[in-house]
Amino acid sequence: MGRHVEIPGLTLGAEDFEAARRNVAPHVYHTPLLTSRSLSEASGFDVRLKAEIFQRGGSYKVRGPLNVIAHLSEEERARGIICSSAGNHAQGVAIAAKLYGIEATVLMAENATRSKIAATEGYGAKVILHGSIWDEANEKALELVESHGYTYVHPFDDPRLIAGQGTLGLEVLDDWPDAEVVVIPIGGGGLISGNAMSLKSRKPDIRVFGVESSGAPAMKRSVESGELVILERVDTIIDGLRVKRVGANTASVVSRFVEEVVTLPDEQIFEALLWLMTRAKLVVEGAAAAPVGALLHRLVDAQPGSKVVCVLSGGNLDVEQLRGLRWN
Amino acid sequence: MGRHVEIPGLTLGAEDFEAARRNVAPHVYHTPLLTSRSLSEASGFDVRLKAEIFQRGGSYKVRGPLNVIAHLSEEERARGIICSSAGNHAQGVAIAAKLYGIEATVLMAENATRSKIAATEGYGAKVILHGSIWDEANEKALELVESHGYTYVHPFDDPRLIAGQGTLGLEVLDDWPDAEVVVIPIGGGGLISGNAMSLKSRKPDIRVFGVESSGAPAMKRSVESGELVILERVDTIIDGLRVKRVGANTASVVSRFVEEVVTLPDEQIFEALLWLMTRAKLVVEGAAAAPVGALLHRLVDAQPGSKVVCVLSGGNLDVEQLRGLRWN
Repeated sequence: MGRHVEIPGLTLGAEDFEAARRNVAPHVYHTPLLTSRSLSEASGFDVRLKAEIFQRGGSYKVRGPLNVIAHLSEEERARGIICSSAGNHAQGVAIAAKLYGIEATVLMAENATRSKIAATEGYGAKVILHGSIWDEANEKALELVESHGYTYVHPFDDPRLIAGQGTLGLEVLDDWPDAEVVVIPIGGGGLISGNAMSLKSRKPDIRVFGVESSGAPAMKRSVESGELVILERVDTIIDGLRVKRVGANTASVVSRFVEEVVTLPDEQIFEALLWLMTRAKLVVEGAAAAPVGALLHRLVDAQPGSKVVCVLSGGNLDVEQLRGLRWN
Repeated sequence: MGRHVEIPGLTLGAEDFEAARRNVAPHVYHTPLLTSRSLSEASGFDVRLKAEIFQRGGSYKVRGPLNVIAHLSEEERARGIICSSAGNHAQGVAIAAKLYGIEATVLMAENATRSKIAATEGYGAKVILHGSIWDEANEKALELVESHGYTYVHPFDDPRLIAGQGTLGLEVLDDWPDAEVVVIPIGGGGLISGNAMSLKSRKPDIRVFGVESSGAPAMKRSVESGELVILERVDTIIDGLRVKRVGANTASVVSRFVEEVVTLPDEQIFEALLWLMTRAKLVVEGAAAAPVGALLHRLVDAQPGSKVVCVLSGGNLDVEQLRGLRWN
């Protein structure tokens, strides 16, 4: 993979991210950048962990929707927002809506677990169960956009949302201006798109790496082929990484602003998850462990001693999944 | 329970703890005092968590041995130190010895798990397996003290060790001078003894609560009866809380410097452990979850809104134990 892929598309600059920050920062935690001597020793880098696990709702997902809402007119806000998700995006949308005092509707498939429904309702959103898979729930959401005038909040490809997610990177550079490399998990690509651009808008020579599960390399293949690849099947049990297709915007941004997308199998990601629990005493979800796995398996091409940030994107570990893991 | 119990005994003052701090601080992390909005909301207090889970070796246990070694003569140091433990004390002794560049020997029963032996050896200690239970391993350790001139490091009742553990409390007051209540788990009583005295040496009106498993209330019964009670049986699976008898010194200190010892069953402690994992995203061991369980179950007698510190004493969770828990 390299810079030979030229996909024109979305570019956001320093002023976009500063504006996003004014919209987002009053409502979120500036999460800590933790040092990890163990991980530094194990990887050979000087590693810090952006602990977004401590964010409201347990992941970065509240940042983007806050910026989307900030861009809505009074009339649009009065009609409310909608999304389809049974994961962190649902909670991010619900929390952001509550913070702005507007209504949120969340579509989930009928097999959504009771705990995820309760968590989203707990933040004040209205949950509607529809269909047997996400696509059906999402179709219903789009119908409701038509009939009720809700604003649809895309989980990763809306430029306003991407700008909001990118506020994380500004905090990283505030706390560690010397950071040289940032490693970020990729699902649909919203997090890495926002942050590759926000980081480079402030520090052009910083290097950004993305990490996917090798069972769902939709971004890697899209960037390599220069067009949006839709995977026929995905083979990962990790929620935040399980996507068949990334976004047109996010693929374009990653092609132009990310040094390399690396992949590793679920097994190595879960190994990193357990490593973080036993060594760093932090609870992370699968996607958040992927950058640490990439360091432990020497997939990030950087000089020994480099100042590296791993983004721990969320801590909403599915505890039933944890129970099934092999512990060494 | 109350102040009617008058057990004369060990008292350490401000100068003892300042001296201990000079010995200990250069070698340990000043661990963070984390705010927890979730726990504050759930408990009705203003709660902060002393995150000793991030300490060297994963628990507070390195503090005491560092102070013990600092008090040894050059000749004693040359002969080395010894202890008997398959838990955090073993690692604390091993790390402290390594930091001072002296030799440590650790006795464990022959059924000690490979991982605990490896962890202790990993810190540079020599591990000797002897006997089928701790008492037999400990007898062997005392024999080696006689034959080799090692200094025996008691797990909780040595005044030098107690002073070292008490350095944790000084950090708490540095970070939060307004703290009003501190809640601390009790096994043998070393941690709470050191910190009840160090906290009150600096801030006499601070209130200290201890927490035991109701399956092993050796401290509560000793303090209530005014004499050292040896339990006939203990009924807890939580390592750091599973003791048949506390120390003569620690019981004396708790009688005089601790407001109240409360107890709760293992089930409620593990519930608190899972609460910390899912809500606070922190990995703690059973003993460390006990103070949080005490808050969640309203066992700590303080005014709503009080400024309360829970000491998360260690994060060395036995992952096999975790696997067996019920997740809600």
